[in-house]
Amino acid sequence: MANNFFEGVEKLLEIWFEESSNPNDDLRSISRTQWENLLIFVKCEIISFSRNQHIDAFVLSESSMFVSKRRWILKTCGTTTPLKCLSPFLEIASLHGYKVITDLFYSRKNFIKPESQIAPHKGFCEEVCFLDTFFPNGRSYCLGSINLECWYLYTFSKSDIKNQFKIKSDKNDDNLNPDQTIEILMQNLDPKVMSLFCKHKFSKACDATLNSGIDKILPDMLVDDFLFDPCGYSMNGINCKGEYMTIHITPEENFSYVSFESNVALNNYRMLINQVVQTFKPGKFIVTIFANKSSLAYETMKGLEIEYSTQSHWKQTDMQCCNFPSYNLLFAQYLYRNKNT
Amino acid sequence: MANNFFEGVEKLLEIWFEESSNPNDDLRSISRTQWENLLIFVKCEIISFSRNQHIDAFVLSESSMFVSKRRWILKTCGTTTPLKCLSPFLEIASLHGYKVITDLFYSRKNFIKPESQIAPHKGFCEEVCFLDTFFPNGRSYCLGSINLECWYLYTFSKSDIKNQFKIKSDKNDDNLNPDQTIEILMQNLDPKVMSLFCKHKFSKACDATLNSGIDKILPDMLVDDFLFDPCGYSMNGINCKGEYMTIHITPEENFSYVSFESNVALNNYRMLINQVVQTFKPGKFIVTIFANKSSLAYETMKGLEIEYSTQSHWKQTDMQCCNFPSYNLLFAQYLYRNKNT
Repeated sequence: MANNFFEGVEKLLEIWFEESSNPNDDLRSISRTQWENLLIFVKCEIISFSRNQHIDAFVLSESSMFVSKRRWILKTCGTTTPLKCLSPFLEIASLHGYKVITDLFYSRKNFIKPESQIAPHKGFCEEVCFLDTFFPNGRSYCLGSINLECWYLYTFSKSDIKNQFKIKSDKNDDNLNPDQTIEILMQNLDPKVMSLFCKHKFSKACDATLNSGIDKILPDMLVDDFLFDPCGYSMNGINCKGEYMTIHITPEENFSYVSFESNVALNNYRMLINQVVQTFKPGKFIVTIFANKSSLAYETMKGLEIEYSTQSHWKQTDMQCCNFPSYNLLFAQYLYRNKNT
Repeated sequence: MANNFFEGVEKLLEIWFEESSNPNDDLRSISRTQWENLLIFVKCEIISFSRNQHIDAFVLSESSMFVSKRRWILKTCGTTTPLKCLSPFLEIASLHGYKVITDLFYSRKNFIKPESQIAPHKGFCEEVCFLDTFFPNGRSYCLGSINLECWYLYTFSKSDIKNQFKIKSDKNDDNLNPDQTIEILMQNLDPKVMSLFCKHKFSKACDATLNSGIDKILPDMLVDDFLFDPCGYSMNGINCKGEYMTIHITPEENFSYVSFESNVALNNYRMLINQVVQTFKPGKFIVTIFANKSSLAYETMKGLEIEYSTQSHWKQTDMQCCNFPSYNLLFAQYLYRNKNT
């Protein structure tokens, strides 16, 4: 592997807090300086910022951070250490009125070079042990083939104590549609597409966004994009419904990696997946979908099966579906049939 | 844990061979002496035998073995080492005309006392490494929460190379209905029920079978049952369709364990699960169902969700569904709400 290796695979942390009794409490009142100090623990920095009435979106030196009233999402790649900021973050959240976590998700794909990671991220077991010190009822999963192509998830749910499906599927009082998240994690990408995300091709990030077709994936998103020197690309998108999307690209051929994530509410993610895959042309990819209504996940599951197993160049190498106390999860893995991957 | 601890949790190996070109080739022509010699590697012995035109069924000192024309099932508990007989078994199978494996499944629940196991069964990683020396394209999975309550599966499928769903769902030329297997693995069982499976209660196994209601679970099965001294119970059942069932009981209160397994063909396993659970009264149990038609698995999945999540004392703590190249798998885990488990 090249000396200039970069681990594009992100660690993704998402935390939901119980509604505060004080309607003015808001995680978005955490100051820029406080975030900057928290991110020192993670080993990354804020490089761009956008917001609307629903959500604050930060582009980081390593990926992204999204903050809304009672939800925090931190997604960081490279050898960052997001779990190291968990304790100080929970202290700050507590000072802003958010003391009780209702749901926590920590997830990542298997690293390309796990041996380069720093504690407590040297392996999933280490990450689980670390999280277990906070959440004695947390659960840990490995989807896909253990020790090969797989995706790890640690999840804690306050509703694990009793069945709260009905509570969770009630309409929320905000417009975030917080109960759906899709991730598409792509590897072995088309070098021609990847060449668009280099400074020698475009000097401005917006040109990469337009020429690649990223702007057409979810056209209603207000885009905050960033092109790294000499190569690499990050973008956050937010729309007026409070939905977000985020894309991170490591274009180098030996370790190319692109991640797409969004909480956009759709009945079926098949068309979105198709568009993302057609935009980036990976040799293999993983899809994960969290949804709190089983029918949505199952619809997509059935759709994906047909789309990718029988009618296309994609071979579905794994598909798993998990029912958690307050969410259902779909995991699927695909390999392009005619590529050496 | 008591000094007289016994690991009831079984290691389950199931191997399917490609149809031999010679219609007379049959794994059932492997001689009793050859089986006895193979089982020396496993550290167990044959203690009873029954058969019909479709299947040979052996009760072993540690669990069971089933042999049909081109399928072999070995299920052994305690500190047995079933993987150690894999290489000599494949040699013998080859001499009987079966050289090509189409599907292999090696599975087990997490051990109660993993530290007591013998190589290559000291951990799932060790088992995977061992199996990978035979099957370079094997895949390994952990369903349920890693390192806690979970169920491990290693699977190899010849059809992993290309999609063979259609081939697999064609009608087989025998009546075995080989494409469905249900396992129900129960722990923390009702001591009153467990007391039926002791020599001081009944001197004959058939009395335990009748009094417990085991004979009513699948009434068309011809039963070969065995009661161990001072306690413990094993039974094999086979019917005229070539279907089998097998139950193994470790009744001691500190480490009680009951396993039920069958390849009986049903559209929906809900009633069967209910009957097994009502017969043995566990504090917690795991269900796994393999089926080669997705609709069957999904039907049961939906049914189980309703049955056990909202209308009963059972809390569904985990439910996962996996699509493999030639089989679908449903995994579900349940905890009795009012018991300290």
